[in-house]
Order: sequence, then C-alpha cells, then structure tokens
Amino acid sequence: MSETELILRRRRLLGRHVTTFYDEPFAPVRGEGVWLYDRTGRPYLDCYNNVPHVGHCHPRVAEAIAKQTATLNTHTRYVHDLILDYGERLTEHLGPGLDSMIMVCTGSEANDVAIRMAEAVTGRRGLIGTDNTYHGNTSAVSQLNAHKTPIGGFADHVRKVPAPDNIFPLGGSPDGQAKAFCAEVEKKISELQDTPHGFAALILCPYFANEGFPSLPRGFLDRTVKAVHRAGGLVIADEVQPGFGRLGSHFWGHERLGFSPDIVTLGKPMGNGYPVAGVVTSPEILETFQKQFRYFNTFGGNPVAAAAAMATFKVIEDEGLQENARMVGAYALERLREIADRQEAIADLRGAGLFLGLELIREDTPATDLSAMLVNEMRRRGVLLHSTGRYAHILKIRPPLVFSHENADLLAETLASAFDTVMSRQ
Amino acid sequence: MSETELILRRRRLLGRHVTTFYDEPFAPVRGEGVWLYDRTGRPYLDCYNNVPHVGHCHPRVAEAIAKQTATLNTHTRYVHDLILDYGERLTEHLGPGLDSMIMVCTGSEANDVAIRMAEAVTGRRGLIGTDNTYHGNTSAVSQLNAHKTPIGGFADHVRKVPAPDNIFPLGGSPDGQAKAFCAEVEKKISELQDTPHGFAALILCPYFANEGFPSLPRGFLDRTVKAVHRAGGLVIADEVQPGFGRLGSHFWGHERLGFSPDIVTLGKPMGNGYPVAGVVTSPEILETFQKQFRYFNTFGGNPVAAAAAMATFKVIEDEGLQENARMVGAYALERLREIADRQEAIADLRGAGLFLGLELIREDTPATDLSAMLVNEMRRRGVLLHSTGRYAHILKIRPPLVFSHENADLLAETLASAFDTVMSRQ
Repeated sequence: MSETELILRRRRLLGRHVTTFYDEPFAPVRGEGVWLYDRTGRPYLDCYNNVPHVGHCHPRVAEAIAKQTATLNTHTRYVHDLILDYGERLTEHLGPGLDSMIMVCTGSEANDVAIRMAEAVTGRRGLIGTDNTYHGNTSAVSQLNAHKTPIGGFADHVRKVPAPDNIFPLGGSPDGQAKAFCAEVEKKISELQDTPHGFAALILCPYFANEGFPSLPRGFLDRTVKAVHRAGGLVIADEVQPGFGRLGSHFWGHERLGFSPDIVTLGKPMGNGYPVAGVVTSPEILETFQKQFRYFNTFGGNPVAAAAAMATFKVIEDEGLQENARMVGAYALERLREIADRQEAIADLRGAGLFLGLELIREDTPATDLSAMLVNEMRRRGVLLHSTGRYAHILKIRPPLVFSHENADLLAETLASAFDTVMSRQ
Repeated sequence: MSETELILRRRRLLGRHVTTFYDEPFAPVRGEGVWLYDRTGRPYLDCYNNVPHVGHCHPRVAEAIAKQTATLNTHTRYVHDLILDYGERLTEHLGPGLDSMIMVCTGSEANDVAIRMAEAVTGRRGLIGTDNTYHGNTSAVSQLNAHKTPIGGFADHVRKVPAPDNIFPLGGSPDGQAKAFCAEVEKKISELQDTPHGFAALILCPYFANEGFPSLPRGFLDRTVKAVHRAGGLVIADEVQPGFGRLGSHFWGHERLGFSPDIVTLGKPMGNGYPVAGVVTSPEILETFQKQFRYFNTFGGNPVAAAAAMATFKVIEDEGLQENARMVGAYALERLREIADRQEAIADLRGAGLFLGLELIREDTPATDLSAMLVNEMRRRGVLLHSTGRYAHILKIRPPLVFSHENADLLAETLASAFDTVMSRQ
C-alpha cells in the first residue's frame, strides 16, 4: 500500500485534523537504537523522540515486556513484587520525602492525579502554571495548555505566569529574572487567594521544555518555591520530559535546578514506549490523596508496566546513558556551535545533555517559517527533528539517549547543509 | 519473600489505602487462560477478570505484543498501517455513523475525551450520568463517580439519575421503569437547561454494570435516547465493561439493548491487558472535537497498542468467544440456578453471556456482609470472584471469555459448598 493510500485511510478513520510532523508524512516500519527505517529500508537518524529513551526497540526492554506479557498481567489489587521492586529502585533516586508512588498509564494521568493531590492536601483548588506549557490531555490538565477557549470558558482556578525566556527576558539579569518570575507567581497566588478557590499548587516542567528550555542558573526557582510554600501551596515538578538522565549532569530536571518539589510526575520515557507513567510524593501526601479520592487505575502499575519500567531503568544505569547524554550532548553542542557561528538566524544555541535547541530569530522576530523549512529539509535528508517554543521557532533536538558522537557528527553535518540549502532559497 | 513482607513493602510504597480484594491478599505469579497461579503453584479459577478478555497471557496476543515491541513502537504523528487496519476492522463491527476513532490508553481517557466531544458538538457542558456508576478516574470523569465531595464541591454541570434496579424498581413494570428512567433524565435535562451549562450528554454503561446490571427489556432506553436527542444532546455508551462479545447474544451492550449511541468508549478488554482504549464516533463529531481541542495522546494507538488490540480482536473471532460466552454463560446460569433455588438469600440471579450476578438480600436488606464472606470463602477455595452493586451485595462473575462448561461446573460446585460453609457460621 502506498503512503498516499495510508494518508487517505488515516484521514478517513482518524480525522482530517491529525497532524503529521512533516510536509511529507513519515511512515517508519522498523526502529533500532537511534534509527528508524521506512519501508524502502532507508534509515533515518532519530534526533527527536524521547519516548524510546534507551533506543528504539531496546532488546532488554522488549524482552522484559515479552516475557512478563507471556507470564502474568493483572492489576494492583492483587499483590505483585515487580511494582515494589521498581518503586523502591525509582524512589532511591529521588530526594527525601519522595518515597511513595502511584503508577498510572500516561503523563496526563500523572499530572491529573498530582493536581488532585495538591487539592486534597490544601483543601484548595487554585493552580498556577507557566504560559505555553504542556502538561497533558485530560480535561482538567489541558486547562493548563488550552489555546482555544474551552467550552464553558477557561477554568477560573487556573492562572498562568510568563515562563522564563532567554531572548525576551523578564527582569534583565539572571537574578532579576528569578525575582521577576517569583513576583509573577506571587501575584497569581494573591489573586487566587482573593477567590473562593484559594491557592493549591504551582506546576511546572523544571526544564521549561515546551517553552524552549531557556538557560537558567541553578537556584533559579528557590525564591519561587519558598513563596509557594509560604502560601501553603505545593510544587509539582513535571519530569515527563527532563527526567531519567536526559539532561546529563543530573538525573532529574529539578535536581539540576536545585530545588525539592513536593510531587514529581513521570511519563513518556519511563517504559521506553510501554504506556506507563507515575506520580511520586511523600507518604503523607499520598495518604491524604487516597483518603479524599478513591483512586484506582486498572492498567497502572501492572506487572508488565513495572517490568518495562524496570528494564528501562536498568538499561539507563547499566549502559551509563546519563553520562552518555552529558558527553555526547556537550559534543553535539560544540558541533552545532560551528553552525551557529556561521548562521546569523541562530540567535541562541542551548540545552543540557541530549535536549538541545537552536533558537531562530530574524529581524528581531521568531523565525517560525525558517524553522519549519529546516525541519522538513532535514527530514528529506534523513534526519528527524522538530520545532518547539512559543512560536515553534526553536529547533528541538532530543534523541534517544544511545546517541553517539558519530550520530552527533551526522546531525551537525546534515544541519549545516540543510541550512545552506534553505538559506539559498530565501 | 513472604506475602506478609510483600504487603508491608506495598503499604510503605503504595500507601495504606490501596485495597486488596480479599481479607487474605492474593499474589498471583503466573496466568494462563482462566487460571491464575500463586507462588506455590496452586491454581485459582479466575471468574472475575475482564481485562484478560481472551484469557490470561493468550499466546497470540503475547506474541503480537512481543513482535511489534521488538520491531517498532512510535506514535500517531508518524503514519503506520496497524492502527488503520485495526480501526477499520473495529468500526465494521459498529453501526452506521460510528466509523471514526481516537485511540487512547485507558477507559478513563476515553470517557474524558467523549465528554469533550459532546461539549464541542453542543457548545454546552451539562452531563447526566447514573448514580453509583463508574466511568473512570480523571478529575473530570470521576465527578460522575465521586462518593466523597471533591475539593471545590461537586461540579454543578454534572447531574445524576437513579439507575434502573430489579429489586427496588422505580416505575413498576418494565415499561413503567423505562418511562420512569426517561422521566428522571428529562428532569435533569430541564434542570441543566435552566443553568448556564445547558445540556450536552447522557453517559451510561449500556449494561449498567456497576449498578448490578439489572435485567432490562430490549428497547428500554429508546424513549430516553429520543429525549436526549430532542434536547440536542448526545448519548455516550461506555462499552468498557459490556463490549467485545462478553454479553454473548451481541457484540456490544448498546446493540443488545437496541439503541444507537453517538459516541462509544472502549477500554479494559480491548488489548487483553495492554493499556489501550478508544473512542468511536462519527467523522463529524470527531472533526468538531479536533477543531475545538488540539488532542494528541503520546502512547495512544501506537503500533504495539494497535497490534495488541488487533490480536485480541482476531482471537475473539477466530475462537468464537462471543458464542462461547453465550453458551457457557447460559450453562453457568443454569448451574447457578440450582444454588439460587436452595439459598433463600439469593434474591435474584441474572446476567448475559459471561457477565453474571447473584443478588443477595436478607430481611429486605442488601446482604453486603454475606457477599463479602462468600467472596473470601471462594478465594480460600481457589475461585476468584468479587462483589458489585450499590451495596456491594451482588456476587459478580465475569471471567475471561475462554471459560468452559467444566469451569462453570467448578464455579457452581464451589459456590454451593461456600454457601453451605458461610451459612452454617451464621
């Protein structure tokens, strides 16, 4: 069946509004490590997907899933050791007070639970998030992302603060920015306290991934975290994107920024593609939540989910993938720096570990079109990446963590040529 | 590690309020067909679990998951044929107008999406459900199930109507009950129309599974469906429990009652344990939803989820499991009838296919305690079932669909003895 036919069938079944990433939709049939292959056998270097965290179809994860699927798959109302082995291993890697867990199926479900934990603990509902973020797709969570007014209007208990930004910063110096961010949060806290909702929690991605991951100094959020706690609120760190070693220097995004969240949510990379996610918090917060809400998740934390998550975790450790992210990420930054030095449109090059971005600005304006052209040109050249940021003007590079120096070279060389091609068309 | 140690670790990690089904928690280590085995190798006849729809660890489903996990697992922004093959196959088994699909990971996510579809189509939010139902665990959906007042109060746009009931019926005769149910729905529609929310949808399980699946005549909901449509609302059929052939006579619960929903939601049994769920509706409703909400589900409909769902679907067909549910279910009812004839506490025996219940009443009062004692006694005797209904006073029998006549005999014989044991203690 041709790809055109696939597209037609897809449109009929899944609707006209399901986007594909590229002008020319991509239809992979096989994956291995950092590579995806189309049906002609052409390899594509995957510089984008974070779900296959330890590499597409990693044999150890695939085997763990296969073995447990053939042995037993039930639910957490029966007792099983795998979820316990995994949870204990996971929480050892998180700070004090983060040693209880609920396993769910998606990051959306994790954040949906985390928000209710904060509600249960505080008895209040007011929620603050950053603008242009993404925390998931449930009705409640998507209030934080909604661009179009939801039916019935935006929820009055959800307020947004401007995320930090490197190019258009609020507050000037790094310290000024930290103060400005805190001031915005305090303003929203105060607004919420003047409503019947009160203030329950601040939720944020500690890498501000969807907002283009501005470079921030360690300690950036200290003042804000104190302000939240002073107001009796909780801090929820959404580690769906930065967690599990991707940032190289640290295992978690909040660890890198140097703050201790009250609740941590996990998702995408946790099971290398198996639908598994989680919420980690203190025993006290968990208990308060469980008393208030009778929460049960049918598939959450089942033996196969636990086996997939455990295998993924072990591979990260056994293959030294956090360190690989640090080293190869630093090398990739260097190689990309050569391009940034030549291309005026690259206003900033930044990132940590294997989560890098090139911010494109032309005539003081976010270069959304240029970004889209590059994304498509790279796809034509067999390298997969995509854009992010408020104006989709930042090239996002976020490969599986088994990315090598050689892969970084191929990425940089292809991007250099793609830039030349696209610029020559201008 | 002893089961006591497992329980202690579990309490520490997962919290004190995660219930186990039995006084003596059950810790299976292996599953096959209708059997679960503990670590001593003791077999337990599974008369309860509907997630392993075609049998625990069915080799064809396990193989499909293993093979696809080792080949490719991405997301629906790339194009892949498996989700299309599955969706086309699935929607062929649904009525006209039900031929577009969104795949998600859990029944909760499916209902959360379905509700927003109704909001998008109607521009209104008012939602009517039955009392004592369960449609899932997201913040929005759990408003339909909440027993304890959620923080911030019950959502004003959610209203409940009494579910039909065989023992304490509202309205007398079957036709009277159908009229009474419709009258209750119309009353809530009218109440909602007097609020700014307006009326968007009626959501129900077309088997009223969580309310003890009262016996209802075909056509029971016809009047109600007309009233909903007359008010410009949509009918959402939550087929998570009755769907995929379990009821024997029909593939879907709504088909058995003889009405056409606007949206159908699917979950638990869909992938035989792989976290996969879905929403099926018309292309028009899907498009309106997609225009209003930019919905994307990372794991939803990925190639492995589609492979798991497709293998499950093929096994249902190839092994004639709907017909098996019809035949063995009818036989099990006969065998259970012998017990019901002897035990006065069994006020009603009912069900369809392999979804059966024994309603326990003593002195005109739901016999919750007796039900709990029987559930635990059966577990001690190596047969797993559980209770349901408004007062947890209905023994629920809902095994994997590969349940045989021999299994039904063992169930009936064990239940007869368990009854004798429990009654002799009274």
